[in-house]
Amino acid sequence: MVDKGLDTQGIKEVEITRIREKQKSREKDFLVREVPLTIFLNGQEFVTLLCSPEKLNYLAVGFLRLEGLLKCSEDLQEIAVDTEAGKVFVRVKMPPDQPKKMYGPRAVTARLGKGTLFAQSLHLLQGRRVESALQVKAAELFALMAVLQKTSVLFKKTGGVHTAALAVADKILFYSEDIGRHNAIDKIVGECILKNIPFGDKILLSSGRVSSEIIIKVAKLGLPMIVSRSAPTSLSVELAAKMGITLVGFVRGRRLNVYTHENRIFL
Amino acid sequence: MVDKGLDTQGIKEVEITRIREKQKSREKDFLVREVPLTIFLNGQEFVTLLCSPEKLNYLAVGFLRLEGLLKCSEDLQEIAVDTEAGKVFVRVKMPPDQPKKMYGPRAVTARLGKGTLFAQSLHLLQGRRVESALQVKAAELFALMAVLQKTSVLFKKTGGVHTAALAVADKILFYSEDIGRHNAIDKIVGECILKNIPFGDKILLSSGRVSSEIIIKVAKLGLPMIVSRSAPTSLSVELAAKMGITLVGFVRGRRLNVYTHENRIFL
Repeated sequence: MVDKGLDTQGIKEVEITRIREKQKSREKDFLVREVPLTIFLNGQEFVTLLCSPEKLNYLAVGFLRLEGLLKCSEDLQEIAVDTEAGKVFVRVKMPPDQPKKMYGPRAVTARLGKGTLFAQSLHLLQGRRVESALQVKAAELFALMAVLQKTSVLFKKTGGVHTAALAVADKILFYSEDIGRHNAIDKIVGECILKNIPFGDKILLSSGRVSSEIIIKVAKLGLPMIVSRSAPTSLSVELAAKMGITLVGFVRGRRLNVYTHENRIFL
Repeated sequence: MVDKGLDTQGIKEVEITRIREKQKSREKDFLVREVPLTIFLNGQEFVTLLCSPEKLNYLAVGFLRLEGLLKCSEDLQEIAVDTEAGKVFVRVKMPPDQPKKMYGPRAVTARLGKGTLFAQSLHLLQGRRVESALQVKAAELFALMAVLQKTSVLFKKTGGVHTAALAVADKILFYSEDIGRHNAIDKIVGECILKNIPFGDKILLSSGRVSSEIIIKVAKLGLPMIVSRSAPTSLSVELAAKMGITLVGFVRGRRLNVYTHENRIFL
């Protein structure tokens, strides 16, 4: 790898060795950028996320919304992003000791699971059901997902990102890309919060697999429908069924699978 | 979704609605299972991971190894898995307050990033370089990745899992599948620890994207090479270059990209 110095926002140009059969060559290639972003909450270092360096304000707000640290744009007193340093400074209305209370030594993980936060989330969502009169045509979902795929600039160049979008039946409202499935969704959520867009009549589109944590996010926001290009898991299907969420997967070309609450989808 | 009651270890059979163009039908489908696994460390609840319900002992040991809570099989005093309850009880040699020290309130995240653990990991690995005389033919990598893909039973049935394997040039030693990229790798690591297999002359194979956290895992283990079907990020390439790790990506058919330390690969 030779760093070519070119380092545009989302993509880095490098020189790599490509092997095809028994041929070796040095060629130009594009890597998706990954950067650490540290969120400072009310003056204290709070968390470091690894992400694509775009829409960092949305990522921070979406992350904090989904972690329960702010509810709406009125809770947000100040937000300042230092892209160069990979830092975002957020000030929200809350008691000064709340972050410590929420993040005890057990609430730790690196991956899919959120430690006991997972159990806590499930408990908090117990008995909640998303109620929504949303109705969409299958053909509209085919069209939305086709647009989602076409819009993905970084994916085309690097093959290394996930995409997410918030949509209504006939158009995509907000769109994001990130190296992380969760980050891409959080960016969409942050943008909605900052623009005061309600979730209750919208559709979340995702390129990534739908695990239980994604469904928990969808439920927290009161979104009635998630539509993915990829597979759901057994637990995500169980949770979506319980929580009144329409879960659509494997949307490819003119085909899709409806796993739960198909009453919101018609032909 | 209708739960058909069939619930084999890794796959759940359900009935779903499939839409093709303007045709709707009820069909049988298979979901990859996702379950919570809570790790109890020296009697205390430690973390809950969401994972595929196989090789849970390997997952727990691999996770603890990579979090620095055990170094080798001698540190492990006891391990008991309760698959039904989704619990694994691990007893390791360490001072009783160590987990609390390692997991302060900041060391929190849900996704790619490990909060300040990321910075800590980088700091700990500073100046470390993987030294290994490993040499592999490109044709051997093509063959290994072809086997990795063929072996994936769950992926074929559900499209929803990642695979990982530990290999030498001419064969795969251990193989794992999981809904999580990280879990699949941790399972391989746990199996090696329990079987006292050294990492320094081996190759890690992965179906998933290579983010910086994956490279940090590889560096912690002293593995000289990671080979993936998917894309790396800019940060993973930078770290692999610094840490002496050969990073190979986009292995598809008879093609591959070498991003760093290509001296270990010959034609």
